[in-house]
Amino acid sequence: MTPDRTKRNCLAVILAAGESMRMKSSQSKVLHPVGNRPMIAHVVDALAKAGISDIALVLGRDADKVEAAAKNAAVTSSVHIQTERLGTAHAVLAARAAIAKGYDDVLVVFGDTPLITKTPLIAARDGLAAGADVVVIGFETADPTGYGRLLIENGELLAIREHKDASDAERAITYCNGGLMAIDGRKALDLIDRIGNSNAKGEYYLTDIVEIVRAEGGRAIAVETPEEELTGCNTRAELAVIERLWQQRRRHEMMIDGVSMTAPETVFLSYDTVIGRDVTIEPNVVFGPGVTIESGTVIHSFSHIEGAHVAADAEIGPYARLRPGANLGEGAKVGNFCEVKKAEIGAGAKVNHLTYIGDAVIGAKTNIGAGTITCNYDGINKHITHIGANAFVGSNSSLVAPVSIGNGAYVASGSVVTEDVPDDAVAFGRARQENKPGRAAIIRARNQALKDAKTKAAE
Amino acid sequence: MTPDRTKRNCLAVILAAGESMRMKSSQSKVLHPVGNRPMIAHVVDALAKAGISDIALVLGRDADKVEAAAKNAAVTSSVHIQTERLGTAHAVLAARAAIAKGYDDVLVVFGDTPLITKTPLIAARDGLAAGADVVVIGFETADPTGYGRLLIENGELLAIREHKDASDAERAITYCNGGLMAIDGRKALDLIDRIGNSNAKGEYYLTDIVEIVRAEGGRAIAVETPEEELTGCNTRAELAVIERLWQQRRRHEMMIDGVSMTAPETVFLSYDTVIGRDVTIEPNVVFGPGVTIESGTVIHSFSHIEGAHVAADAEIGPYARLRPGANLGEGAKVGNFCEVKKAEIGAGAKVNHLTYIGDAVIGAKTNIGAGTITCNYDGINKHITHIGANAFVGSNSSLVAPVSIGNGAYVASGSVVTEDVPDDAVAFGRARQENKPGRAAIIRARNQALKDAKTKAAE
Amino acid sequence: MTPDRTKRNCLAVILAAGESMRMKSSQSKVLHPVGNRPMIAHVVDALAKAGISDIALVLGRDADKVEAAAKNAAVTSSVHIQTERLGTAHAVLAARAAIAKGYDDVLVVFGDTPLITKTPLIAARDGLAAGADVVVIGFETADPTGYGRLLIENGELLAIREHKDASDAERAITYCNGGLMAIDGRKALDLIDRIGNSNAKGEYYLTDIVEIVRAEGGRAIAVETPEEELTGCNTRAELAVIERLWQQRRRHEMMIDGVSMTAPETVFLSYDTVIGRDVTIEPNVVFGPGVTIESGTVIHSFSHIEGAHVAADAEIGPYARLRPGANLGEGAKVGNFCEVKKAEIGAGAKVNHLTYIGDAVIGAKTNIGAGTITCNYDGINKHITHIGANAFVGSNSSLVAPVSIGNGAYVASGSVVTEDVPDDAVAFGRARQENKPGRAAIIRARNQALKDAKTKAAE
Repeated sequence: MTPDRTKRNCLAVILAAGESMRMKSSQSKVLHPVGNRPMIAHVVDALAKAGISDIALVLGRDADKVEAAAKNAAVTSSVHIQTERLGTAHAVLAARAAIAKGYDDVLVVFGDTPLITKTPLIAARDGLAAGADVVVIGFETADPTGYGRLLIENGELLAIREHKDASDAERAITYCNGGLMAIDGRKALDLIDRIGNSNAKGEYYLTDIVEIVRAEGGRAIAVETPEEELTGCNTRAELAVIERLWQQRRRHEMMIDGVSMTAPETVFLSYDTVIGRDVTIEPNVVFGPGVTIESGTVIHSFSHIEGAHVAADAEIGPYARLRPGANLGEGAKVGNFCEVKKAEIGAGAKVNHLTYIGDAVIGAKTNIGAGTITCNYDGINKHITHIGANAFVGSNSSLVAPVSIGNGAYVASGSVVTEDVPDDAVAFGRARQENKPGRAAIIRARNQALKDAKTKAAE
Repeated sequence: MTPDRTKRNCLAVILAAGESMRMKSSQSKVLHPVGNRPMIAHVVDALAKAGISDIALVLGRDADKVEAAAKNAAVTSSVHIQTERLGTAHAVLAARAAIAKGYDDVLVVFGDTPLITKTPLIAARDGLAAGADVVVIGFETADPTGYGRLLIENGELLAIREHKDASDAERAITYCNGGLMAIDGRKALDLIDRIGNSNAKGEYYLTDIVEIVRAEGGRAIAVETPEEELTGCNTRAELAVIERLWQQRRRHEMMIDGVSMTAPETVFLSYDTVIGRDVTIEPNVVFGPGVTIESGTVIHSFSHIEGAHVAADAEIGPYARLRPGANLGEGAKVGNFCEVKKAEIGAGAKVNHLTYIGDAVIGAKTNIGAGTITCNYDGINKHITHIGANAFVGSNSSLVAPVSIGNGAYVASGSVVTEDVPDDAVAFGRARQENKPGRAAIIRARNQALKDAKTKAAE
Repeated sequence: MTPDRTKRNCLAVILAAGESMRMKSSQSKVLHPVGNRPMIAHVVDALAKAGISDIALVLGRDADKVEAAAKNAAVTSSVHIQTERLGTAHAVLAARAAIAKGYDDVLVVFGDTPLITKTPLIAARDGLAAGADVVVIGFETADPTGYGRLLIENGELLAIREHKDASDAERAITYCNGGLMAIDGRKALDLIDRIGNSNAKGEYYLTDIVEIVRAEGGRAIAVETPEEELTGCNTRAELAVIERLWQQRRRHEMMIDGVSMTAPETVFLSYDTVIGRDVTIEPNVVFGPGVTIESGTVIHSFSHIEGAHVAADAEIGPYARLRPGANLGEGAKVGNFCEVKKAEIGAGAKVNHLTYIGDAVIGAKTNIGAGTITCNYDGINKHITHIGANAFVGSNSSLVAPVSIGNGAYVASGSVVTEDVPDDAVAFGRARQENKPGRAAIIRARNQALKDAKTKAAE
């Protein structure tokens, strides 16, 4: 059937106009992130992967932000504002103008089901290509209570029976309506327009389309997808469940592809995280957006990595924070309590302890001592620190940018470096030590007297 | 029934005299914390929320500490020492003096069930108010093996049948005895005194009260509560289960109230944690006691927050540690590897990298550079650092308290500040840099020679 | 039966020659770690604990590394290379030379089941000692699909029926073949040699031995072990499952022994972690190999501990990193963002904030100020820092090793210490502060002008 589908064009209508009241949020629920990407962007991505390039967004709250979040280079979107909430069929009709342009397939999906994959979307379109007028995406569930049941006979979908209207026999059915639906694009408007609202709530339900199309001799079928893919989101607790399922899916894919995770449930990925083979990730590692890790690198516990590129065989953490623009060369090391931002760390270079490297370029095999700080900010501007290859920056040094330190240069521990250091030179920027014999005992006595006085005053 | 209950007074007897042997602990199990509060304090809190203000503590091991841990402004407690362990009925009688004061209701609860809520306690008292003499709190369970079964007929509780004495039909019953019980306060002592010890262990079982009260024409009933609420604690493994259930409950409540948690199972709350709406909490955040976070604040991963107040729209972490007395103004930022203790951080002020701020006041919009340390301790006393508004403290500075830095003042990077800095002044406290051309190559050669000598000596 | 078993000698054949293709790994799967120890070492350890001292390793990929990883002082191993993969019976025969030496018992186990314990291994050998010729280790499972079923009659194992060959009645059997097997050592080679390869894949299956031995009047039985112990590993996702089960087992044992873990699922142990009674471990703590923690110590969240010894009543973290050679005395404290490597921290000494202590000896009750760095590395060699007892090292100090600081000595905050400090002396190594009145306003204006110029240039 695939060849047929690919010759058909398709409009996907994404329903995302809900008020999201139960989220108790300052923004529409479809803007809330899963894997560090708004929910709606996941839905658009699944559509794009299913080969669908035309999308009608039915929006209400935060329409501008949702439109922006739904942007995707592979699709063209139109926005349709739904002003009243009168049921799903009514919501779809908000996109009447888009549907009326004429499509072979119209696919109705929801903005708050970010776990949907291309598979059921393709299957639903294949169903249309094979002659069905309506294809409902369903799921099998252990506990169907509350869901609409799919009444199937001889492979055809007779009706979607709401739980409250179902007979005992029908309630025993565990195949349920997932809400998503593909409709013959040439008939879609006509069919939906005929949906009525003679029900308790006075709403227009898209599910009625099944009986309408059958009444006129049309054909409805169902395609099944795992329940997980249809998980929707009404509260932040449900959002957390979706995030968990999404993370499990991505971690599993990565492990199968050759990434080791000691405790995958403690590794948090972003939608665009790329990790190479034979990378080892210890417990408790968080990946923000924009990260690529090449093969053979080890990421120790408690690392937080965002917007960074790490070449092969590097070593990160524990407690390393790589921020956007961190670019680590092969075999480089960034260790505990180190922060790297907008900086090149050369191949084999080491930044191992309690260090802040921001707006810097560090050459290969250079060693940055513990407690080193690049003073990149003057309160208003950011400046660059250049450090050559094979250099050695002593511990607790302050490198006041803009400044350059040459190849093979040394910076003495505890120095404040304000001027460039030539290749192979040593920079000192610290005071000479002076010892005051016996003075510690005197200071201790004085401090103790102070404490005693305070204690007395407090009495 | 509620009006009746509220006119009745009630004594709660908390049984907490166990030896806690299986905890293998240096303290009584009821002192072990759940949500950073001793288990027994949770039980007292549930009683107080159920409107009960008189409590009899039946104690053994660590009685003084347990009494202190059970302190609660809403209740009056008496302590009764149980010296022998002869069963639950015997334990309750240790509080004879308190019961004898005369109460409408006597409620028997356990010190090691911190998940109990007010709901079943109120329901049990409502049962007494409605005419029952004894009300047993029960639970439904999938696997009742080992529990006493509740034999119910026509809404009355006929008996509590111990597992070992139960017939096959009775073993099929899944409604079990939770151990907690409400007894008509006017009859309680008389009924309990009649409990005998003719059983294998020679102990006095409070559960026998059901058959005793029925034998004289009294009425016993059961009220149901979720099994989780009755989870008790005999080992540290069970304590961990209770902690997990407690955390799940609190996280869920918070999410429903509008707090976002990317991975709720990695967020650890305290009993008194208060978090506002639209706060986002990334994975791996730990809240010690005494924390309030206002709305709109973002808490990044690996943050540890205790005894701190954070105003709205602030940004915390990753890797931020807020200790008791940390008080962050609106829009303030405390970033990675920063520790703040007993300090005000003004609105919009930034403490972003590798910094220790202790015993300090920092004005609005001031920027504290990376690696700054407030040297607040002289080995004996703590001293205060004052920093004005719109100031700029350069990286790697040491601020030796007591010291003041004025509004709009600058501290040069790497300075040691020992004297006050006036408004808009710049403080330098660092040595001039000097470069020694070619010296690094010489040092390298010398260090290499040292290494070679060591290597040779080791051979 | 035990006395009989202990008089019998035993060879364990470990099959570990697989290609591990699905691990997508640069090394054999049996080298992948569980609890920071290669899987195969866990298997050898279980064999040693079961009293087996002779081991035949059947290896393929990475044979040298696997042999090294399997080293265990309690066993003697021989290595046998399997060059072709023709089934389990064929694999066992790679160790023909070892088996031919003559053993009472031959035990066949797998290198990728690190959760196996001594219990089923002993039970299997007891079965031989009691007269069986073959003893298969089986497990009960809720979902037996795909496993070989154990056909038992009158306590004897009739056959192992592969899933695809099983009748419906046989498929209902939930007692399955775990793969591990004990064989009468005197008959083992003869029996295995008779296994044929007339099957779909043309492989020699060890499971056929059951029907062969019975056909000649021998006796086969099965012994049961929990399914968990037989969990094997073909992908990194399965490796993560094994790690999780292993961690759960060890955490539970520790809690039962008196260790408190607020959230055990966030505590990661190594195979050799030793933790005393009444130690409290907060959420998110990682133990690398070689750690001993004595009783009463508290380990706060986000700590990472490896190769360290911590005496009683110490306090670690949050965010403490103890590296190999860290040795903390009684009541010592290592606090947030502190790293300790190869260093003695005296009893009651405190290293509380943002500090790096490497290659050092610190005396009792000494206080190390925030931001202190031992500058132990000159780029080529490591040097030692000695600090006496009751000393006070001011914040942000750099201690340039080799250097000694005496008992009761003070180091002024922000000092660079390059020379020894006598007992009770004070060392200053910092510049005097100078204030430039009004200069901050000028700098601000200059910086702003720079920014404006940049902005303009960018337009």
